[in-house]
Amino acid sequence: MTDTPLQTTEWQSRLLATHVRLRQQAPLVHCLTNQVTVNFVANVLLAAGASPAMTDHPDEVEGLAAAADALLINLGTPSADSIAAMRRASQAASRSETPWVLDPVGAAALPLRRALSLTLMAHRPTVIRGNASEVMALAETGTDGRGVDTQHDSREALAAARRLLAQTDGVAISGRTDRLLGRSAATADAVTVGIHGGSAWQPRVTGTGCALGALISAYLAVADTPLDAMICAHVHAAAAAERAELTAHGPGSFAVAWLDALDRVDLSGFLADRLTLE
Amino acid sequence: MTDTPLQTTEWQSRLLATHVRLRQQAPLVHCLTNQVTVNFVANVLLAAGASPAMTDHPDEVEGLAAAADALLINLGTPSADSIAAMRRASQAASRSETPWVLDPVGAAALPLRRALSLTLMAHRPTVIRGNASEVMALAETGTDGRGVDTQHDSREALAAARRLLAQTDGVAISGRTDRLLGRSAATADAVTVGIHGGSAWQPRVTGTGCALGALISAYLAVADTPLDAMICAHVHAAAAAERAELTAHGPGSFAVAWLDALDRVDLSGFLADRLTLE
Amino acid sequence: MTDTPLQTTEWQSRLLATHVRLRQQAPLVHCLTNQVTVNFVANVLLAAGASPAMTDHPDEVEGLAAAADALLINLGTPSADSIAAMRRASQAASRSETPWVLDPVGAAALPLRRALSLTLMAHRPTVIRGNASEVMALAETGTDGRGVDTQHDSREALAAARRLLAQTDGVAISGRTDRLLGRSAATADAVTVGIHGGSAWQPRVTGTGCALGALISAYLAVADTPLDAMICAHVHAAAAAERAELTAHGPGSFAVAWLDALDRVDLSGFLADRLTLE
Repeated sequence: MTDTPLQTTEWQSRLLATHVRLRQQAPLVHCLTNQVTVNFVANVLLAAGASPAMTDHPDEVEGLAAAADALLINLGTPSADSIAAMRRASQAASRSETPWVLDPVGAAALPLRRALSLTLMAHRPTVIRGNASEVMALAETGTDGRGVDTQHDSREALAAARRLLAQTDGVAISGRTDRLLGRSAATADAVTVGIHGGSAWQPRVTGTGCALGALISAYLAVADTPLDAMICAHVHAAAAAERAELTAHGPGSFAVAWLDALDRVDLSGFLADRLTLE
Repeated sequence: MTDTPLQTTEWQSRLLATHVRLRQQAPLVHCLTNQVTVNFVANVLLAAGASPAMTDHPDEVEGLAAAADALLINLGTPSADSIAAMRRASQAASRSETPWVLDPVGAAALPLRRALSLTLMAHRPTVIRGNASEVMALAETGTDGRGVDTQHDSREALAAARRLLAQTDGVAISGRTDRLLGRSAATADAVTVGIHGGSAWQPRVTGTGCALGALISAYLAVADTPLDAMICAHVHAAAAAERAELTAHGPGSFAVAWLDALDRVDLSGFLADRLTLE
Repeated sequence: MTDTPLQTTEWQSRLLATHVRLRQQAPLVHCLTNQVTVNFVANVLLAAGASPAMTDHPDEVEGLAAAADALLINLGTPSADSIAAMRRASQAASRSETPWVLDPVGAAALPLRRALSLTLMAHRPTVIRGNASEVMALAETGTDGRGVDTQHDSREALAAARRLLAQTDGVAISGRTDRLLGRSAATADAVTVGIHGGSAWQPRVTGTGCALGALISAYLAVADTPLDAMICAHVHAAAAAERAELTAHGPGSFAVAWLDALDRVDLSGFLADRLTLE
């Protein structure tokens, strides 16, 4: 990694201060997420220091999305009711300037979800988070995938992600290396940051990806920029995963240890040497 | 704590015997609960010795609520279907004299839930369990709250809880000190019992509150009075939490250890010195 | 156990090779399962080496059921939407020859589910998995049960299971001894295999039964016969349970250790001495 503004001590201090603010402020994060991982996502937010609210009744979400400090919309298991709730919540968030994250799970393989994602994007998500296939599908540069996994590396979706920056303030592409696209606070130039590390157990536990979207939402409530929020969320998750791996005996104990580590992991070592500017 | 009937050896023996009966009889507890914590609540009931049934199809709940030994209705994530199920189940429970618990999650902040709670209360819940804001909202002494948390201490809701005793046989107010209002088995006088202790990890795991409602339901099936059921449930939960805290490294391992402890915790020490008559 | 073809070294080698193939091929298993255990079932499949997809939107399930390597339909918490999804998915699986498992949870006690099970059976499930009461209810040899548990031993359901073999290729009856009915690969004769062992903690954790149905689905994608798939799934689950029991302190830590063990358990010892031909 070359010496860049991203690597200065000042920059690291700002991110560490953002992490501290998350615990101090315990932002209220409204989640419209999927039924498979809703419990895990709520526990991840609690462990990280945020206050989750998982209400998804269409008649309740507008008020909550407006009152919350951030909103997550995850398309993992859409239903007629939850789709109505997503439409109303994204509109309310947009009107009240609640920052929000769109996680278009399955949008690459399932037409209903790609169409729904494009509709929700009219309310300008603050950040879009997905795997390479999903990001490419939203940018209309390709659709594929089988189920909800991807056949692409995050690098392959960079061009698609750059196109999406016209419709959002940040794009997080999951992969072996996570790649985060946003704008520099100092120059407003487009910036791509690579996050290295984490644990091979993460994809062996359902919801670790959904949890990243939730963590980005939480950090949007306390960070200076969407880029900072994406970096803090990924560093928090990956540093905790590396700590959890030290004591895990398999995917079950890894998930438990990850929640423990999210509560108390020190991010400074990770910030010093696991990020690259691309 | 002054020397009162609640503190006699006879009283402690009765509560310990109730705890033993829970394991021996393994009562069938029908739960209409929320989608966030439904798995955790089922595992809590199994760990404590009860038999959970989480069926929520509107056409199935009447028969099950009538056949079950107790019913829990938790408003955490209402949907059109689950609201219909709650109405039918509460009515069936009332007709068949199945004891039931109402946990009005979010009733302080969300008007839909307050209105639904008041409707369900027409079928006289045996116990109402909530935080201070929720109890005050049901007694129409105030509405507030943001999301599903409270800004009030349990003590502030005591007057509201006393008013609710006209519509229910017991009120459990969650807080740093849990406060339980019921009637003495001996004198039928109103009694308030404070439960001290537990673990600071409990609010850091989603569903520990919902689990209390489920445990009260389970104990209603085997206890002499609603007050006994509320006390046993809270003592069981808090004693297990203290035991779990001894080995927990964070919220993930605390939740696991709490389930382990619910299976085998000894309540006698806790009963001896953690309760106050107020 | 007498010396039979099932006990030859060749047979054990075939089952061990099937277990290895599960990890190598990571089959895509589409699950329409219940809301109580959906997270646990997904984690069990991931731990065992499969790729779960839990999509249940009625408009998405036909494509996914056709594309998937196997399908699970579990009736644990039916709703109007999920019932529509089950009908469409089972039909699509049948047309595209995707092997599928029916787990008729509650069909003994709840008429809606028995009727739904019989409707779905028109699309010929590859395997039916249930407790004794459920298997008897589907074969119309008796209905009973309270909630979702059974009052019968698996042996009592053998006659019912034999009748069901006209409508399916395999029947797995859960109980203290699990009994698996299928046809010998060599002779096409009906065969009954008993699986002994496992852990007393299994029924104390919600979803361990649902997980068995999911594991059978996963193994159907890689096994030579439905009988092999049923045996591999049960041996995998029971051997992992015995390993997990060695370190468990209660139901919470058992569930975690079971996931860990599903990832890495060695089946050879279990195959050698825990199966009987009946």
